[in-house]
Parts: sequence; structure tokens; C-alpha cells
Amino acid sequence: MGSSPTVRTFIFLGSMKKTKQQKNLRIIPLGGLGEVGRNMTLFEYQKKILIIDMGLRFPEETMPGIDYIIPNISYLAGKEKNILGVVFTHGHYDHIGAVPYFIEKLGKNLPMFAGRLTKGIILKRQKDFPGKPELNIKDVKDGDRIRLGPFEIEFVKLNHSISDNFGLLIKTPLGNIFHTSDFKFDPSPIYDLPTNFKRLRKIGKRGILLLMSDSTGAEEEGHSLSEKEIMENLEELFKKTKGRIIASTFASLINRMQQIITLSEKYKRKVAVDGYSMKTNVEITRNLGYLKIKRDTLIKPKQTADYPDSKITILCTGAQGEGEAVLMRIANKEHRFLRLKKGDTVIFSSSVVPGNERTVQMLKDNILRQKTNVFHYKMMDIHAGGHAQKEELKKMIEIMRPKFFMPIEGQYSMLVAHAELAKKAQIPQKNIIIAENGNIIDVTRNKISLSKKEVPSNYVMVDGLGVGDVGEVVLRDRKVLAEDGMFVIVAIVDRKTGRVRGSPDIISRGFVYLRESKELLAETRKKVITIINKATGGGVVNWAYLKNEIKEKIGSFLYSKTQRRPIVLPVIIEV
Amino acid sequence: MGSSPTVRTFIFLGSMKKTKQQKNLRIIPLGGLGEVGRNMTLFEYQKKILIIDMGLRFPEETMPGIDYIIPNISYLAGKEKNILGVVFTHGHYDHIGAVPYFIEKLGKNLPMFAGRLTKGIILKRQKDFPGKPELNIKDVKDGDRIRLGPFEIEFVKLNHSISDNFGLLIKTPLGNIFHTSDFKFDPSPIYDLPTNFKRLRKIGKRGILLLMSDSTGAEEEGHSLSEKEIMENLEELFKKTKGRIIASTFASLINRMQQIITLSEKYKRKVAVDGYSMKTNVEITRNLGYLKIKRDTLIKPKQTADYPDSKITILCTGAQGEGEAVLMRIANKEHRFLRLKKGDTVIFSSSVVPGNERTVQMLKDNILRQKTNVFHYKMMDIHAGGHAQKEELKKMIEIMRPKFFMPIEGQYSMLVAHAELAKKAQIPQKNIIIAENGNIIDVTRNKISLSKKEVPSNYVMVDGLGVGDVGEVVLRDRKVLAEDGMFVIVAIVDRKTGRVRGSPDIISRGFVYLRESKELLAETRKKVITIINKATGGGVVNWAYLKNEIKEKIGSFLYSKTQRRPIVLPVIIEV
Repeated sequence: MGSSPTVRTFIFLGSMKKTKQQKNLRIIPLGGLGEVGRNMTLFEYQKKILIIDMGLRFPEETMPGIDYIIPNISYLAGKEKNILGVVFTHGHYDHIGAVPYFIEKLGKNLPMFAGRLTKGIILKRQKDFPGKPELNIKDVKDGDRIRLGPFEIEFVKLNHSISDNFGLLIKTPLGNIFHTSDFKFDPSPIYDLPTNFKRLRKIGKRGILLLMSDSTGAEEEGHSLSEKEIMENLEELFKKTKGRIIASTFASLINRMQQIITLSEKYKRKVAVDGYSMKTNVEITRNLGYLKIKRDTLIKPKQTADYPDSKITILCTGAQGEGEAVLMRIANKEHRFLRLKKGDTVIFSSSVVPGNERTVQMLKDNILRQKTNVFHYKMMDIHAGGHAQKEELKKMIEIMRPKFFMPIEGQYSMLVAHAELAKKAQIPQKNIIIAENGNIIDVTRNKISLSKKEVPSNYVMVDGLGVGDVGEVVLRDRKVLAEDGMFVIVAIVDRKTGRVRGSPDIISRGFVYLRESKELLAETRKKVITIINKATGGGVVNWAYLKNEIKEKIGSFLYSKTQRRPIVLPVIIEV
Repeated sequence: MGSSPTVRTFIFLGSMKKTKQQKNLRIIPLGGLGEVGRNMTLFEYQKKILIIDMGLRFPEETMPGIDYIIPNISYLAGKEKNILGVVFTHGHYDHIGAVPYFIEKLGKNLPMFAGRLTKGIILKRQKDFPGKPELNIKDVKDGDRIRLGPFEIEFVKLNHSISDNFGLLIKTPLGNIFHTSDFKFDPSPIYDLPTNFKRLRKIGKRGILLLMSDSTGAEEEGHSLSEKEIMENLEELFKKTKGRIIASTFASLINRMQQIITLSEKYKRKVAVDGYSMKTNVEITRNLGYLKIKRDTLIKPKQTADYPDSKITILCTGAQGEGEAVLMRIANKEHRFLRLKKGDTVIFSSSVVPGNERTVQMLKDNILRQKTNVFHYKMMDIHAGGHAQKEELKKMIEIMRPKFFMPIEGQYSMLVAHAELAKKAQIPQKNIIIAENGNIIDVTRNKISLSKKEVPSNYVMVDGLGVGDVGEVVLRDRKVLAEDGMFVIVAIVDRKTGRVRGSPDIISRGFVYLRESKELLAETRKKVITIINKATGGGVVNWAYLKNEIKEKIGSFLYSKTQRRPIVLPVIIEV
């Protein structure tokens, strides 16, 4: 399988207008260390910039207090007028969630293009940010083409765990680029069309210069499960369950929500939807006609008591063990109306996001302690991810037969695994680029390479109303505070005598339990007084030096007594 | 398969001496919420107490700064003279690590019994705690029997990931109890004897009143991998690798370390061992003859540069992505001598401990970025856990044919899964006990039941030199500090005028970046002055009320401006 036949087909009007400007295409994925080009990608050609997606990520464990991480868009500062528009692949937050943070910076009238459902989700989210401008979004459907400057974008429906997911065929003056978005091949999805391979093959035949393909499943063997199999397994559970069914999944897994609702209707169960994000998504998708629910299926959580247990499904969030989510509140007996009881069946219809394993384990244990049944994806196939696995990824490469290949949307090890697949599919090593966010990928007709230059791509952290104001210093302090707490010493020094007045005040949190540490505190006070009186004893006092002295000496004293290192903060007041 | 034939065999001298004392046997697992009886278990009969294991656990994510969790032994307070002794199953820290914290409380001369290797590890650990008393440990070997009061304990070698692992046949006046320790059945272990099924069957035939069996693998289908398969796969890697091999595993996986060393010797590689715990364990096991190393195999990490890459193996800790461990330091270019280079092969020969998935992913990514090869247990079978899976667990139940069954050593969901296996093996539901730590399990000849009483079993946290002094209050403060930091306000009030002198000092950490928040700080100062001046304006000042007022008002002001809630600590000084 050579790639040269595909290249010959690139005769393209755009490329005729030769200028002395930048002749290559630059692709710049943004979004910090980690998954490349999942959240946001720039395509730049002769200074004109096309943006794909504007998503956010959830913080790492090492970022306490942080709500989200958003891409660093400082590269776009000063280039606002060159931005042609934003194209969204689908409505998951890692692809759309940063819009409210960027829209003012990038220009209120920035043209945006998204599927109808994606548009609905973006608009709903924008409402959660009062005072933000209205958005200029046009909705697109499968097969639509739009032109933005030198780019023509064709929307190509692909299966994922949410409707209106579009791969993008981006025609550029240099050739065609196919961006898969998140995708999987599903020969038998539920409430959705199966993958249209005929069309994909046609696209492949038009010649693909560069394939950018979803790597999330590149380390998983075989083929992802079809939603049909999931549906059949879920139906088994519905068939045999007599008590209430409590089905928890991601609020973003619209397809799974539909399955639970349809099965509930088939087995004459009412459905109570609970959890803010899930209720919101039910509302959006139902209003737009993406979720089919019979008129009298939905009831409120409070009403579940009015029906026999065998007639009740509770559809809720919290399968990841999130502290505030519905399932956790039910399991911890903190929910307003719902308590677990013997005979209930809890279904976790979602995989465990890495990092959440322990919390999910504790949640499961807590549910089992209440004598309920638990089913999760490790016990039977009641969850399928939204991402293609090795066999599907190979097939995508074989269909597109690209000249160049760039694995995107995955941790580095997944990109490496995906690149291996491409190599096995006869794409030469030099035509495969494993990039990182902030890299500049230079594409010409004959060559793909990483520029030596990079654009800023560090994390931008969102904490409450602050965007980017929490940096390394604040985070480092938070970590130290979390480990060993803080220890403030307030001492009053008499200006005349140079001696400490009274006994220094000590305020401490997160270090030791003060009431049981009176001796330690008394000793510390004594030491502080000695240090200060010695320093102020003769001549000019160097206050900065003195403070440092207290910090260090008291710090090591406390360490020797406790082997803990709280942040020591001396305050000395001269009166 | 009925259980009655097994019961008839229990004619036992001990049971003849009938007293009016407690006639039942009490089993009390200790160790906080979670894995039942992994760390420590008490057997109490007529006030005499036998202790099995004294281990520790690693803290949850919700316990910042905590080093370990140890069992709560307050139940033993006042009963020290009734303690017969401690029997250790094997040398892993979750079974022996709490010894230094308990030994003084329970009596310096407390008799202890452990395999030779276990004894070596316990003694070595005791040395890390200077000033602690010497221990009174007797070593035991397979087949040994000891008598402790009403209990006779026979040591029964079982396979695990460390040598000298003993299941315990505990003969009590009520009948025989078999405690499996951690175990797996391995028909072809490396450097170890295969499971002696003949002997186990003999034990089963003597009649088992209660089987307490390891549940760690109870949710895993099939049979655990044999170390022979692991060895063969590792050998494949050694055979084909040209560059250096960097093999990382748990320091507690002595068997795996032996495999790596043996393969290195076979393929003419020198071995540099790095990492404190691994070096320690190599030393202990080598001295005791458990680890076989040729005289000239080991070199120092510094010496690796003196040999061709094809002649080097580096055996190190850090497969869990631990921040300070060797592999992380190598990957982050922070190791004193070792840097990764193209051609290196890094082997992760261990599974990922739940909760470490993200860190291990980042570590792997970081290694791959340096163009090295990575092999881990998801790619090929180069790791086997030390725990029996479903088929082995069933077999253990079938061999022992116990009257009563108690799953131990696993998260609650694993205990439930293990209990399911026992039910399928025809043990009646009423004879199966799923307990929690702190429960009292009452055993008679005819009945096993949970007492309504419980013993204290909350977590005891070890933080530096403090044992149990960090409680809920301190932890809660640490969590808040980690999320949003702290904000100390120091104001000086003139006693005569009642007005604030100068401008209040503000000290803050982990909240906002102070240098970029001057406006916020200025506004806050103004507000503080207003609040104080108002309160001190007329008559008697209620200082406690005033402080609270500042806390609340400034707290909500800061929240309105930032949507963060730092701990606000006002200090008011009257001069």
C-alpha cells in the first residue's frame, strides 16, 4: 500500500494563488501537557487561522482547588482579526467547554459552526456565565460544507457516544486533511446510523494528505463494543430485575441515557432523572429531538415512592464516585428523597476514569453494604467507550491511506501505540508526527515536520472566577499547606526596650491538634522570644533577617518535634 | 458436598476443660474501613488473645500529609497480660509494618513468631526506629507447630509473591480454623516449591470449622498467572533487547527481583540495584539466603557507565510512579548518575495500584518521550499478582470444605464476590460471614454470627512522629487549605482611640498570587478597617464577636470576588 497514488489527486484551486507569504500550513495543537489536540487545534495558512474546538480539561490531582484547565491561547493575542472561525467536532466539554472563557478575547462575533446538538449544549453552557456575550453559532449537518478563507470544511458524521459528532474533511491549498474527531466504528448503534463506510472510502479516494486520528483507544486490542451488545446486556438486567433500577452513567453519554429510557419504557418503568448535568442534558437533547421519551415516562425523584419498586428506574450521575453527585449522595444516605434498600439494583454504566478507581471502589463498597446488587462494566458488557480500538484505527488508516499521519487525542503512550499501527500500515516513519501541545507542525505537500519554535502551551488554570491567576507559586503553597498545614507566629516588640511584649500569639491550622499540643506551643513561644530578644538586643535590627531566622529556627524545631514541615509565617509588630 | 462430616472430627482436648467463662471464640479484625483483617486480627478465647499480623496501610487521597494508617488497638488496652503472642503470616508491610508503633504498648517481651525472612524484615524495620526495644521473635518454618494458650498454630507454606508465606492452621477448643494468609496456587513457581495440594487436602480432611481466605483476587476470573509464564515472557525481552534494561517493580516482590537477577546473569548483564527499599530488601534476602546472586553480578549505579549497554540491568523501584522513587528520578532527569537514552528498555513488572493510574501514565509518557521502549503488564504477561483468583479460591474452599466461611483481605466488593463463590460451593448463606474491621465475630461449634457490639476501629493516622494525633479537625483544615489556601489579617487597634492603627497586614498563601492582587488586598484592608472601627466605636468591645464578624464578612467578600473560600484568620492586637 503506497501513498503516492493518493498524492497525485491533489490538484486544487487554492494552491494556484501563489504568494510570497507562508507557503506551508501550520497546525498547532493547544492544551498543556497531555492529550494532544483534544481540546483545541489551530490551522494557520498565510496568516489566516481556523480553530477546531475550544474545550477544557479537568485538573490533575496535583492541582488542588482548581476547577478546570483551559488551553493557553496567548499565541492568538494580536491575531484576532485573522481568525476565520471555530468549527466544533461534537458537544463534549473537552471540546466545547472553554468557549465562555475565550469568546470575549477572540471577538464576540467570531463565526462558529457546530452540529445542532453541539450548538444547543454550547448555548446552554453560555447561559451559566451571566454577562457573557451572545454567540454567533451556525448549525451544520452531516455533509454540509463551509468555506472559511483558504479552508473548505466538510462535516462527516462518525459514531461516538453523543450524536452530531463530525469528522472534518478540511480541504486546504496543500491537500485534504481528515480530522476524525473522537470516533468509533459501530456497525449496529442504537438510535443512530451505522458508520457509512462507503462514504469514508470515497473520501479516502479523493486523496488525503494528512490523517489526524483519535488515539484514545490505541492501546486497546480489537474492536470497541457495539451499542447493540450493550443494549442486549442491559436488557438482560431489566428483564430479570424485580426491584428498583438505579442506573448511573456520565451525563455526556446521551446514547446510554436513551438506552436506559427506552428499556424502562419497554419494561413499564417510570424514569426519575436526577443530577444537575443529567437533567440539563435531558432537557437540551429532548427539546432538540435527540432524546426520545414518551410523554408520561419521566417522574420526579420524589414521586418514585408512589410506584411499586418494579416500576421505577432512577437515572443519575455519579458513576465516577464524584463527591457531590447523586449516586454518592444516595449511597451515603444524604439524598433528600432516595435511600438504597435491599432488592435495589445499581448499574454503573460507564468505565472508571483513571484516577477515580479508589473513589469508585469505595462507592461500590458502600452500596454493597446496603445489601443492594451492583453491576459494573467489569462484570458484564454494560458499557462501551466512545473510542475506536486498534482494529478500527487500522481500518481508518487503511480507508484514508494518508500520506502523512498524526495521532491526536490521547496520552503520549497512546500516540506512540497509534503511530505503531500507522507504521504497520506502511506509512513511512518520516511521514508520522507525534506532536505535543504547543508544537508547530509544518505541513507542505511533501513533508511534515515539527518546527523548532513552539507556542506557549502551559496550563491555564481556572479557579472560581480567576482564570490563569493560580500559578506554580500558589499551587506549591497549597500542596505544602495540604501536607503539613501552617503556623503563624505573631509577636509584639516594644520599640523602646526592643523586647517582646507578653507572649507571642500562635495560629495554626492543619499541623497538629492545638488543644493537645500545649507543651509544644509553650516551648515554641519561649524559643521565639529568645530569638527576637537576641536579635533586638543591640543596635539596628534587621527585620527581614529576623523573620527569616524565626522561620528557619522554628521550622526546624517543629520538624524535630513532629517530623512535619508546616509553612511558618512570622509577624512581628513594633509598638 | 455437605459440611457435617467435617464437623464430627472435632474431638479435641482443649474443649474438655469446660469453664463458666466465654464459651465461644471471638474473632476481631482490626484496621479501619476497608480490607477486613488484612493488617491485624485478634482471636480471643476465654480472655486469652492471639494476634495475627500487625500491619499498616497507606493513606487515602483524602488524607494529605499522612504517612501510614495503623490499626486502632484500643480494644487491647488493659488486656496486655492476656495477649499470648503474635503470629505473622509473611513479611509484607501490610502485615508487619505496625510493629514499631505497637510493641511498647503491648509489652516488650510479647512473643512473636514468623518465618525466617519475615523475621529478618521485621528486625530490619525495627532498626529504622531508634530507641525502640528489641523484639522477642522466634523463627518458624513450614510444618512447625506452636502452642499459645488454648491455640495450637501450625504453619502451612503457601505461594505468594514473597518467600516464607504461611497459611495458619489454628486449632482451637471449638475446632480448626484455616487462615490462608495472602496466597495463590502456583503449579510452577520460580525458586520456590509448588503448592503442596496433598498436604492441603490432608488438612481439609482433618475437618475445618472455619476458613478465612484471601479475597484480593475474588473479582478476577480464572487462575492467576504462574511465575513460570512470567519468567518466560521476561526472558523473551532479555533475549531480544540490545540496550540497557531498566526493570522496575515493587521492592516487596522478592520473587520478581530474583527472576530479573537470574535472567541478567544468564544474559551476561551486570545488575545495579537502586532505591532504598529495594537495596534493603536485597541485603536482607541475600544475607538470609533467600535471594541467589552470583558473586560478581551486582555493581553500583555509578558503574553502569563502565559496561556496554547490552551488559547492564538496572533493577529499581518506582513502577507506581512514586515521586521520590528511582524510576521517576531517572525519567525526570533528576537521578544522580542515570539518564534515559534511545535504545533503553524500561520494564514495568508490576500492576498499577488503584489510585496511581494517572501518575503511572505520566511516568510512562515521560519515558516514551525520551525514545525508550516501554513494556508493561497490559502489553504482555510480565507481572503476576500474588493473589488467588476465582478458580483458585473455589479450589481452596473445595479442599477445606469448611463449615463456616469468612472472606478476608479485600475491599467489600471482593468479600461479596468471594462469598458468592462460597455459596456456589454449597456453603449455606447463614454459615458465611462478611465482616468489617471492628466487628466481633462470635464462633461456636454450630454457629457463626456478628455480635451487636463492636470494638473501636477508626483509622489511626501516623504523620511524622505523631501517631493518632492527626484527627478529623486537622485533616479537614488541610483539605480546605489545599483547596483555597489561607488568609491571615493582622490589625492593630489603639486602645485609647479604639481605631485601627495604620493599615492591617495581610498574609496569604495558596489563595491568590499576591503580587497580582494588589487591588483586592487594598479593598480588603479598607473593609477590615471599617468593620473594626465600627465595632470599637462605642462602649465595650466583644473581641470574639468582632473576629467572627471579620471572618464572615471578609470571607464572603473574598468569595464574591474570587469564588474561593480560603481559611480567614483575623488577629487583632490592642496596643
